[in-house]
Amino acid sequence: MPLAHLDGCELPAAADMHVHLREGEMMELVTPLIKQGGVNTVYVMPNLIPPITTVQHALDYQQRLQSLAPDVTFLMSLYLHPNITPETIVEAKKRGITGVKSYPHGVTTHSDAGVVSYEAFYPVFSAMEQEDLVLNLHGEMPPSAGEDITVLSAEEAFLPTLLDLHRRFPKLRIILEHCTTAAAIRAVESCGPNVAATITAHHLFMTVDDWAGDPHCFCKPVAKNPSDRRALLRAAIGGNPKFFFGTDSAPHPAQSKRGDKVAAGVFTQPHAVSYVFDALEMGIQMGVITAEDVTLKKLEDYLCNFGRAFHRLEDKSGDRIVLNKPRAPVVSLLTSKSGSIEVVPFRRGKMTWDVRWK
Amino acid sequence: MPLAHLDGCELPAAADMHVHLREGEMMELVTPLIKQGGVNTVYVMPNLIPPITTVQHALDYQQRLQSLAPDVTFLMSLYLHPNITPETIVEAKKRGITGVKSYPHGVTTHSDAGVVSYEAFYPVFSAMEQEDLVLNLHGEMPPSAGEDITVLSAEEAFLPTLLDLHRRFPKLRIILEHCTTAAAIRAVESCGPNVAATITAHHLFMTVDDWAGDPHCFCKPVAKNPSDRRALLRAAIGGNPKFFFGTDSAPHPAQSKRGDKVAAGVFTQPHAVSYVFDALEMGIQMGVITAEDVTLKKLEDYLCNFGRAFHRLEDKSGDRIVLNKPRAPVVSLLTSKSGSIEVVPFRRGKMTWDVRWK
Repeated sequence: MPLAHLDGCELPAAADMHVHLREGEMMELVTPLIKQGGVNTVYVMPNLIPPITTVQHALDYQQRLQSLAPDVTFLMSLYLHPNITPETIVEAKKRGITGVKSYPHGVTTHSDAGVVSYEAFYPVFSAMEQEDLVLNLHGEMPPSAGEDITVLSAEEAFLPTLLDLHRRFPKLRIILEHCTTAAAIRAVESCGPNVAATITAHHLFMTVDDWAGDPHCFCKPVAKNPSDRRALLRAAIGGNPKFFFGTDSAPHPAQSKRGDKVAAGVFTQPHAVSYVFDALEMGIQMGVITAEDVTLKKLEDYLCNFGRAFHRLEDKSGDRIVLNKPRAPVVSLLTSKSGSIEVVPFRRGKMTWDVRWK
Repeated sequence: MPLAHLDGCELPAAADMHVHLREGEMMELVTPLIKQGGVNTVYVMPNLIPPITTVQHALDYQQRLQSLAPDVTFLMSLYLHPNITPETIVEAKKRGITGVKSYPHGVTTHSDAGVVSYEAFYPVFSAMEQEDLVLNLHGEMPPSAGEDITVLSAEEAFLPTLLDLHRRFPKLRIILEHCTTAAAIRAVESCGPNVAATITAHHLFMTVDDWAGDPHCFCKPVAKNPSDRRALLRAAIGGNPKFFFGTDSAPHPAQSKRGDKVAAGVFTQPHAVSYVFDALEMGIQMGVITAEDVTLKKLEDYLCNFGRAFHRLEDKSGDRIVLNKPRAPVVSLLTSKSGSIEVVPFRRGKMTWDVRWK
């Protein structure tokens, strides 16, 4: 067991800076699982149907989430959309909204209302810079951007847009969400301290081979090459405050994963922190990182500290979790109360580190 | 309609130099569809369970196929396996077997019995060279060959093996099956005339974007990048006798495509020739080739002549087909007689060129 030295270790509750909690019965199923995953703070994505483009909608959604998980801090976001004006941003700041998420048009789940051109939003970005709201970027060029854009090249092709936005709005805090390539890691490193990135647990595990033929491993952005996975594993425990934890946990009903068209999303909420431990053990076994690289401090920085620091949060809860070596496998299926929704967690049937609340 | 000039054109019946016809009810369902696809000659893959490693097994299988489609010429192959000895090759030649198919271990459907190292088979290849049997290569390095081998890199990583086998056995006729990359096209071009390649209809259509999220487009080798697709489209109508038609039609029960693990294979038999017309029209619309490039002569060479020439066959049947512009969409599902097997054809619901027998 490569991380034997961490068996029984304690950490503050983690902050998961990218979650999809959905609505209705799916929301009721997955929201209470946040804490099971070792997390007490989540940054909530706004891609509902319709997308969250008003402050009131975000706050109403927050209230629904809060009632399902009263001890969790829900950081709320708006969906970048023509409805959003500089005035919206001022109001959002006043009422405690954390950021604005941009989906390029048509690249992932519920991105039909997404951005076609960023230029129209420069006044909004300017307001966000002034109000100190965060811009969360889904960093993929849409297929319409050129005949050579594919799911494999879309992230790298987006990086000039990231650099351009950073140059135009140097004080705007930007997070490149769920980055999946060595090129993205390098691009984020090359920017000033206002640009950061989330790294998911599942992208620490996977390459293209994992989602080729496995619908439960298919998500956007797709997992790329072994060289990219190596860069992500090293960045996650590299001690650079620009890289922090965000699961992009994206539950879909099991039948949407097993149909003629496979919904994009990997569901990791119930074992958010555990999967990171599992992935790092795999990285050690592959020789990408060493057991000595994985110190408790590095893990705490990636899982708990760097995300909160970027968002200027303090965790006053004192919540702590204890991690123990794997005791049980991930369940195959989670079922909603009425039984009408089933969802398949990542790495079903595989052993995973054990998280307990202290 | 980019190929309007070919509406109503006539061709000899096509030769499909790579088909999977399965066994049992699936075989009974798909074998009669060969002619519907515009084909009267097929090269049959030996990856049954157990694999075809004796001449008698191949001939028994041929008889079963022949009874389902009496007018079709079935070229039979053995599965490269420790059971195959130089004596098997001599016997195979005597009894009319055409070639031997090599599956690297673990790369695709029913490849568990596949090759780990080619060196052990050098005496067999030597016998094949003498007996003039064809070696059909599934050209992918297995994942075990190195940490950077993925479904995307496996074909290119295999090309040195192809070149090495060609250098060692220069008189051995080798077909790199279902090639999917520009690199493979270049490698085959660089070899002597004894090395050729099949190009499927579906790889003329697809890139990685098509199988990301669509189980019915997932096959091995996977479709790659737009630059690879461009190379395939150009090679198919490039007039080089090294490149000819082989569909790799690979039917799987629909439930194997819609499960937690997706079987690899695209089912194209019922519209084998039509899909090529559809793909070339797409290539013209994308500006990769021009309508003028697609002459009846070039199509006949790729679909009918080059494959037969490489296999030293003559089509004495006089069978001819007529191609007309699309009249109807591809059906969504084909069902076996008892109803127990369903199979989903490629491009279900899409319009496709119409093939009639003259």
